[in-house]
Amino acid sequence: MSNRKKLKLGAMIHGVGGGWADWRHPNALPDASTNFGFYKEQAQIAEAGKFDFAFIADSVSINEKSSPHYINRFEPLTVLSALAAVTDHIGLVATLTASYSEPFTVARQFASLDHISHGRAGWNVVTSWLSGSAENYSKPEHPDHGTRYRLAREHLDVVQGLWDSWEDDAFTRNKETGEFFDKSKLHTLNHKGEFFSVKGPLNIARSKQGQPVIFQAGTSEDGRNFAAQKADAIFAGFRSIEEAKEYYKDLKRRVASFGRSPDDVFILPGIGPIVGRTEEEAERKFQEKLNLVNIEDAIISLGRPFNDHDFSVYPLDEPFPDLGDLGNNSQQGGSQKIKKLAKDGNLTLRQVALHLATPRSTFVGTATQVADTIQQWLEEEASDGFIINSAIPGGLQDFVELVVPILQERGLYRTEYDRDTLRGNLGLQVPVNRNSKVSITN
Amino acid sequence: MSNRKKLKLGAMIHGVGGGWADWRHPNALPDASTNFGFYKEQAQIAEAGKFDFAFIADSVSINEKSSPHYINRFEPLTVLSALAAVTDHIGLVATLTASYSEPFTVARQFASLDHISHGRAGWNVVTSWLSGSAENYSKPEHPDHGTRYRLAREHLDVVQGLWDSWEDDAFTRNKETGEFFDKSKLHTLNHKGEFFSVKGPLNIARSKQGQPVIFQAGTSEDGRNFAAQKADAIFAGFRSIEEAKEYYKDLKRRVASFGRSPDDVFILPGIGPIVGRTEEEAERKFQEKLNLVNIEDAIISLGRPFNDHDFSVYPLDEPFPDLGDLGNNSQQGGSQKIKKLAKDGNLTLRQVALHLATPRSTFVGTATQVADTIQQWLEEEASDGFIINSAIPGGLQDFVELVVPILQERGLYRTEYDRDTLRGNLGLQVPVNRNSKVSITN
Repeated sequence: MSNRKKLKLGAMIHGVGGGWADWRHPNALPDASTNFGFYKEQAQIAEAGKFDFAFIADSVSINEKSSPHYINRFEPLTVLSALAAVTDHIGLVATLTASYSEPFTVARQFASLDHISHGRAGWNVVTSWLSGSAENYSKPEHPDHGTRYRLAREHLDVVQGLWDSWEDDAFTRNKETGEFFDKSKLHTLNHKGEFFSVKGPLNIARSKQGQPVIFQAGTSEDGRNFAAQKADAIFAGFRSIEEAKEYYKDLKRRVASFGRSPDDVFILPGIGPIVGRTEEEAERKFQEKLNLVNIEDAIISLGRPFNDHDFSVYPLDEPFPDLGDLGNNSQQGGSQKIKKLAKDGNLTLRQVALHLATPRSTFVGTATQVADTIQQWLEEEASDGFIINSAIPGGLQDFVELVVPILQERGLYRTEYDRDTLRGNLGLQVPVNRNSKVSITN
Repeated sequence: MSNRKKLKLGAMIHGVGGGWADWRHPNALPDASTNFGFYKEQAQIAEAGKFDFAFIADSVSINEKSSPHYINRFEPLTVLSALAAVTDHIGLVATLTASYSEPFTVARQFASLDHISHGRAGWNVVTSWLSGSAENYSKPEHPDHGTRYRLAREHLDVVQGLWDSWEDDAFTRNKETGEFFDKSKLHTLNHKGEFFSVKGPLNIARSKQGQPVIFQAGTSEDGRNFAAQKADAIFAGFRSIEEAKEYYKDLKRRVASFGRSPDDVFILPGIGPIVGRTEEEAERKFQEKLNLVNIEDAIISLGRPFNDHDFSVYPLDEPFPDLGDLGNNSQQGGSQKIKKLAKDGNLTLRQVALHLATPRSTFVGTATQVADTIQQWLEEEASDGFIINSAIPGGLQDFVELVVPILQERGLYRTEYDRDTLRGNLGLQVPVNRNSKVSITN
């Protein structure tokens, strides 16, 4: 099986955890989000498990109501650069918002990470759904949903254009003649668009993998089209295999409609597996996690995809409130899913909040059960792999020790790294430089 | 002698070297500027030499005439984050322009580096003198010299304000009660100024050293005042000890005029020592370097502080041209020095260009001679230390092996690191959080 067809695995390294109360677990390191030793250990565990990449989430606005895992944490590019120095094979994927960044700096920092890591960088392009972000970036207002996606598309075009400033054989570095580079192989972008004017060229060459890999996480109409057109890998969240299959089919169709091969874009749901030596042990671990959450925190957390809407004003045990259009201009895909969840299940506000705070994962069970579910998702075309968002302390280690060997035994997953770039591991080609006809082989 | 009074040493890690033709040296690694192994080795050599910090220069605009050391290199924050993971004691100082960056992102990335390195980060605040920078950042024009310094002052105020978002004991992380942080110790900046509106708070805590150390390199009037008011350390270049003493006296006077202790600001000239086992060996090494430069490159390089002015239109062997105000709006201090050099020495264009391309350093000689000169500069109050900008391949290693032991023997320099933060090594206090009266001890 080619690398492209094999199961992909990423590890989200999330400091104190992705859930509101994960830090309260008896085994949790409560300072994990700014503890480099923790990040290093997690990345090395993922690398021992032959994972394709480590993934760092991000946001650029907090307030006193924000969840513990948002308020005090490493910035992704810096911590991934540090991880590059203490790992050898694993890809390094940083989330960074297009809405509040400059393409020239973004292109430089990712290209620099790509060189430091010898071709292991990836960019998860997000658009920021929290309107508070504008207030941290001297902007009069947060752009609306459609504008954000138009801007993100142009931003990414500029960044990818800058990454191709130098042809791969531009640097001749001939000490005899004194020619450091071939001027005909340096290309100035001269971009002038709706949002950005960027002349270039970029002051760093392409890396061993050509360009960093592009990740995207959109679930709205705009998000799906952007991902289908531009992404190499898509990070998404689903409540069931049916939902995932529907998304998978829709996304791959859109990919084809943009003239790309559906096999060139990977759909990678985020999952929080909880693995036990027995079913009972797994269930006990899940219950332990459930008990950490209190309803007040769950209600605040629920507000996030609705731009920090205050849900505490509604009665807890009555049907989920009618919110009208609320959420459409923030995290559109996510907020619509929540409304649908409430409506389909006829749930109360309390039920929705607690369910979302600690969703019942279908990936709870023995290692064999979890491996079975993974295999089912692959075979039924619900996903091309997963991003493991460790739900409990030690969760990544458990997955690597217990589940990965089963996946390897079944021939679904690599037993050794056979390439040394992120593109190589994913089975993606090195993109040809837009300014040349010469490609480097992967 | 307290740390504050001891000699300070920094190492500029410059990839292919700070000179136009350094990469042509037979022992030079021509790909050094994007070779992480090279950066790691240099940082580890500097750490073996008990240096206070490694320093990375930067710029955000190149064109086909730019010098080899500008056109293809690591971005400072990413490469220093990677170096943080493979060093333990040495400070990590990144150059970053205030003119083309967002305070929220700058504050985050430096704070993140500061946490990754356990309190070893420094920011060299520059204002960018190349007008081409504006064209890479969607800006209609490059701000003028005075505006850039006004902007830099406000930018730094915002960044330092964001760094104090959280009091040092804000994170209670009480698993029993569920209180992750004490809300009364979170502070929102709410900055609204001439250039920036930044609400905050920052999504990362203060580090072990409180805040990153501030470096500055201005030599113009505006630059000197900015440095005197805001910097902890000043990077400068001088042609002679007399020039350095004059600057030192002027700067320390300005520091006092801002109500600060002159001992709290260190003046650190950049020097390119060339050390030989004998005087002849040192001289031979210097001549080798001289022979690498050709006049065409030297003429282009000369144009840089004048915003890439084209000097090839003037006759080479006639007196240096009268340039009027040219340069005042780009690198004002640097360009004025060049004009003065030409006038004082009654030099031709060729002489000025070659002199600047490979200035005759006063730090060429045997280890004892170089140590003597260093001691003289300290004792005569020409500097508080130096930034070693290795002039030739192996130069940093030579300095560490041959000169540092002499400085240590004379009691001028530490023999072991006795603190573990950059502030600690420099003998600077941890700044008290502006929002609290509680200080942490260093």
